[in-house]
Amino acid sequence: MTIARELAKKVVATRYEDLTPGALHYAKIGILDTLAVGIAGSVDEAAVIARKVSGGEAGTALVWGTAERTSALQAAFANGIAANVLDYDDCTDNLGGHPSSPLLPASIALAEQRHLSGRDLLTAYVAGFELETSLGRGVNFHHYEKGWHPTATLGVFGAAAACARLLQLDEEQTTRALALCASLAAGVKSNLGSMAKPMHVGNCSRSGLLAALLAAEGFTANADALEHPQGFLDVFNGPGTYSIERILEKWGTPWEIEMPGIAVKQYPCCLSTQGAIDVMIGLVREHDVHPDAVTAIDARVAARRLQHTDRPRPRSALDAKLSIQYVLSRALTDRAVSLPHFEGDTYQDPDVQRAMKLVDVQPFDEPMMNELGDSGASVVLSLKDGRRLAGRIRRPVGHEPGVPLSSDLHKSKFEACASGCLSPRQMADLYEGVQAFEDVSDVRRFTACLEGAQAVPVRRAG
Amino acid sequence: MTIARELAKKVVATRYEDLTPGALHYAKIGILDTLAVGIAGSVDEAAVIARKVSGGEAGTALVWGTAERTSALQAAFANGIAANVLDYDDCTDNLGGHPSSPLLPASIALAEQRHLSGRDLLTAYVAGFELETSLGRGVNFHHYEKGWHPTATLGVFGAAAACARLLQLDEEQTTRALALCASLAAGVKSNLGSMAKPMHVGNCSRSGLLAALLAAEGFTANADALEHPQGFLDVFNGPGTYSIERILEKWGTPWEIEMPGIAVKQYPCCLSTQGAIDVMIGLVREHDVHPDAVTAIDARVAARRLQHTDRPRPRSALDAKLSIQYVLSRALTDRAVSLPHFEGDTYQDPDVQRAMKLVDVQPFDEPMMNELGDSGASVVLSLKDGRRLAGRIRRPVGHEPGVPLSSDLHKSKFEACASGCLSPRQMADLYEGVQAFEDVSDVRRFTACLEGAQAVPVRRAG
Repeated sequence: MTIARELAKKVVATRYEDLTPGALHYAKIGILDTLAVGIAGSVDEAAVIARKVSGGEAGTALVWGTAERTSALQAAFANGIAANVLDYDDCTDNLGGHPSSPLLPASIALAEQRHLSGRDLLTAYVAGFELETSLGRGVNFHHYEKGWHPTATLGVFGAAAACARLLQLDEEQTTRALALCASLAAGVKSNLGSMAKPMHVGNCSRSGLLAALLAAEGFTANADALEHPQGFLDVFNGPGTYSIERILEKWGTPWEIEMPGIAVKQYPCCLSTQGAIDVMIGLVREHDVHPDAVTAIDARVAARRLQHTDRPRPRSALDAKLSIQYVLSRALTDRAVSLPHFEGDTYQDPDVQRAMKLVDVQPFDEPMMNELGDSGASVVLSLKDGRRLAGRIRRPVGHEPGVPLSSDLHKSKFEACASGCLSPRQMADLYEGVQAFEDVSDVRRFTACLEGAQAVPVRRAG
Repeated sequence: MTIARELAKKVVATRYEDLTPGALHYAKIGILDTLAVGIAGSVDEAAVIARKVSGGEAGTALVWGTAERTSALQAAFANGIAANVLDYDDCTDNLGGHPSSPLLPASIALAEQRHLSGRDLLTAYVAGFELETSLGRGVNFHHYEKGWHPTATLGVFGAAAACARLLQLDEEQTTRALALCASLAAGVKSNLGSMAKPMHVGNCSRSGLLAALLAAEGFTANADALEHPQGFLDVFNGPGTYSIERILEKWGTPWEIEMPGIAVKQYPCCLSTQGAIDVMIGLVREHDVHPDAVTAIDARVAARRLQHTDRPRPRSALDAKLSIQYVLSRALTDRAVSLPHFEGDTYQDPDVQRAMKLVDVQPFDEPMMNELGDSGASVVLSLKDGRRLAGRIRRPVGHEPGVPLSSDLHKSKFEACASGCLSPRQMADLYEGVQAFEDVSDVRRFTACLEGAQAVPVRRAG
């Protein structure tokens, strides 16, 4: 028995009837959120270039936000990029990344191609989510800290599992699809802050689908490709840095999508900056702080978070999404962090650039780490009048395990994302359609509400 | 200045006039050999499945051995698999793998799409070859021994460089194309012996082309993606296991394709077994050894070679290609190791299975390693009449640096590979066309001689 086969057995055995109400509730949150950010991302320059380059094969899978239907593989690539390019897509703990942007572009495209139902998709999504986060339990956070981009390197396995489930592959075929992913996993964090990052996600979603399609046709791979000495675990992570036991310790009961569940981002920037933004916006609203009154901004987050967010001089809007200095300054000056703050050269706004000079960001010391933990943040504002305003948070709003973002806040985010591309009618159809996704009889018909004219200009991320 | 940019400068500066006669001679050997093994591989089950699954977009790039012309990306994937699936494609020292199967499927497809010339292609090929082997100098053999499949993980950079050169990308674009490859590199050796292995190659050829096409349209990536602490070198290899100096120490003078040059395989199986086969065939021919007369076969190769070739009980024909026990037994019983020996369940031939039980294979001891080196082999046959026949070799025939396989032997291999798919007229056109490749004015017209009807049955590798 190999890891790929153990996991394959579980994927094959997962049925719609196994999904709990909590899992379904969160699954709908994930679908709505991913489609919303994907629609918003579809006009981004990275997504537009990717569509132009990756081919225009005629097919049945919608390129979200456009009128184009293409092959499932090409749609998975394009939509995966669109879903991740704004860094506004959902998160979950064990993955150390975005769970849904690898899964849904591939599974929705495949479901469209095969006329599958909402229930088929929900089942596949929950299984894929469970698989990628199970791997995450076993390899993180060494995997992440070493420099892999887990959304892509683990997400590819999740996408393959979801697609294998949609195709109703048997145990042997599913095993091979997962084993193929050991050979398709890719994406290093040195390319974060550039268009390469969302490309990781489009590529992994496409690759997961490719693995499942190949396996369905009899393509072979070695069932021990994960635990083999020259396999995924030892080569990507390294001996002694993972736990096979943790990978296999549970499946469902509860589903990972239910607990810890899906964290929905309120701000279209890096996960590791969300808590600090919550604190900053809270402070400036509560004390009605004017940016000119501030003389110093002292921010603290976990060292692991700082590794990729300590960017005092972002070189592009995409880079600014990862800059804790930029987003804190933007939260101070605008009392919000929203999509327009990452368009063109908005990041060079002089007021924000001035505020950025005040930011001193340091890793948590030990007592602070013990109190606030891996996702926490502390912000202290020093004011000209001598006051010091301090706030801290353990988890960003919407990121507490098992506590979804309120449906009002989520709907606001959905509207902000979708309104640029979709008609009010489409938006209503989409929102209501997702709420009753188990009643969707054919995903291909459902996605009509995601068709856009792409008349809006390309958003140049700079 | 970053590694990607340093390398990009060199790619951009490479011109047809810089190619030496030796480089051109070897480049034609590589083109002929890759097309030959690709034609032979195009009927393999793995290639057929890959074509079926990866899409059927109409385009201008030929899927070798078929009448289908598709998009350049899809052709690169399909032809990359076909070129590598038989494990019969060329080799070179510093790469620790197959240099041409990542490069040529992508570059030929792109050249067909853009109506580029033979000289354009030769220039791109030599530059891509130089780039992937330069990386190999710096990261091998730790990269290889750790479990990466360098043909794919380094070949993707070579393919991107070749395609960047064909597209005449500037320094910044070429830098980005190479940086994107840090995020696209994939392929672990745990999947060797399955169809996943040639998929690594098709995938890397396609990915290299994708990187160049994206960069040409303005897609971004980080120029320091290789040397960044979370970049290609530290994440794939690990700190302290590579040399940036060696990567950048030379470019041309002589070209890597000229010295050490291209090693052409005589036998359609793993590189690490070729020397032992030469010795075995030499012994059985010289002493007219009958298999029944042999009581023991004592083979020795470098420990590194044994890591993946010690397969006493191969489970499939693809697995048998990596089994030193199988190929030595086949060489004993047939005095040859050729394509039909890896079709269907031929590997289960009882005579060969009997001979395999006699094989004892061990790593070189230190004196032997000092004498024969990394590519050498020693074989000792014990006979019933008490004689012991011993032979050894430092390099397989056709693998000595700077000494190409004789053109007679190479032409024989070409004919054995191509005759199943191509007409005698096409074979003559192909052979002569490659000999005067600098006179090809449009690669798209040239590839007409690679069109096949695919009437031949699918070769099931078992």
